[in-house]
Amino acid sequence: MRVALYQCPPLPLDVAGNLQRLHQLALEAKGADLMVVPEMFLTGYNIGVDAVSVLAEVYNGESAQQIARIAKTIGIAIAYGYPERAEDGQIYNAVQLIDAHGERLCNYRKSHLYGDLDHSMFSAGQAELPVVELNGWKLGLLICYDLEFPENARRLALAGAELILVPTANMVPFEFVADVTVRARAFENQCYVAYANYCGHEGEIQYCGQSSLAGPDGNRLAQAGLDEALIVGELDRQLMLDSRAANRYLLDRRPELYDTLHKR
Amino acid sequence: MRVALYQCPPLPLDVAGNLQRLHQLALEAKGADLMVVPEMFLTGYNIGVDAVSVLAEVYNGESAQQIARIAKTIGIAIAYGYPERAEDGQIYNAVQLIDAHGERLCNYRKSHLYGDLDHSMFSAGQAELPVVELNGWKLGLLICYDLEFPENARRLALAGAELILVPTANMVPFEFVADVTVRARAFENQCYVAYANYCGHEGEIQYCGQSSLAGPDGNRLAQAGLDEALIVGELDRQLMLDSRAANRYLLDRRPELYDTLHKR
Repeated sequence: MRVALYQCPPLPLDVAGNLQRLHQLALEAKGADLMVVPEMFLTGYNIGVDAVSVLAEVYNGESAQQIARIAKTIGIAIAYGYPERAEDGQIYNAVQLIDAHGERLCNYRKSHLYGDLDHSMFSAGQAELPVVELNGWKLGLLICYDLEFPENARRLALAGAELILVPTANMVPFEFVADVTVRARAFENQCYVAYANYCGHEGEIQYCGQSSLAGPDGNRLAQAGLDEALIVGELDRQLMLDSRAANRYLLDRRPELYDTLHKR
Repeated sequence: MRVALYQCPPLPLDVAGNLQRLHQLALEAKGADLMVVPEMFLTGYNIGVDAVSVLAEVYNGESAQQIARIAKTIGIAIAYGYPERAEDGQIYNAVQLIDAHGERLCNYRKSHLYGDLDHSMFSAGQAELPVVELNGWKLGLLICYDLEFPENARRLALAGAELILVPTANMVPFEFVADVTVRARAFENQCYVAYANYCGHEGEIQYCGQSSLAGPDGNRLAQAGLDEALIVGELDRQLMLDSRAANRYLLDRRPELYDTLHKR
């Protein structure tokens, strides 16, 4: 499976503009099976609670339908971030995965909210972490800060995830996460991690770019710098199997010793 | 607190020789408050089950007493690896921490055994992870492969550890762990990690060196290359507090979501 990551500056408050460039990039990424774009791609991330409240959409709203048409027309799966208005009126920082037939595979709500920014705009997701199948690969979703907690990628790996998609909006001075944490998560869980970040500015925020696709051997298959980029890497099942044979972390865990991890 | 790490080639089967160089190095490290040496330092690591069976000592055996005298005479705490013969006759891959007064602070038995090497020689430790205090800092112990499971460093951090000592015998081709995993553990747990590895050969094993002291900000305070080295770094409480204020991982965890981590 070929995975494309689109690293871009945010285009805040411009849903139509973001749908347009998503369409354009999906065309450019043709040949890839899946394209991942950053957290809150549909609206921009640092847009404030009032704008989020206005722009939030239900999971099967107008923009979702339009993205499903783009995915189906071009024949590429798309994972994108957006503000989700739930049935009960709460707003979540969500990522939706739509397959190349335009069918919704998964909608995930960020469970670990980051600082005042997230807390001012969003409710925290409560759900189990879903694992879905795409092109024969088992996929899980996390969003930005979620990945920085080893517990979350581990939960997905234990549920069978072979590829973790991480739309993010990671900023200076947290480059460490893009450089080191992403590779550590891939290696310790013996899976692929696709980390799609913004670059450029948004209000006071300077995003740190460095989107990457990291493999179970800890190497990066594809890596962006600080500028706008569409990067592509190909998952290799044999490499994953070989790496899992050499690094038996998922088999050598001793869960009976880990009871304090879930104690409040 | 100043922490010294001694990276050295193993001196297999030569307990007297290892005690002698431990004494010498403790003298050279004077000015440091604590010296950490590799896994199974007392006997070498890749020595086979028969040798381990002959050389294993009880936790307060002759070598432990001699190391306590070295620590007290020089006025430096010492953490060292050795094969421990337990009360019930089982042999563990252990690390003991002795303070600068020659008092035993902690004895830890490796809980995550690595491959045929460990399994052929040792029983797996079952105990809770101890956290002890030295010079006003809370310390935890792990051994080599233990650190590669994010669960273990997290358990220590949740128990209050501010510094995790990791005597190790990490080999080619697992340099990734020394380079990336060590820093990831320090950053995600907002603590210091002192990773003391071997260099050189031992039988078929080529050790990968790269011992380091990593800080809660993810930076390395001290780092060895591929050769024998005594490296020293100083822990900075204010840096740790500032880093914990900026990276609230220990506060922002959501343990109620982590129940699958301890399910067998």
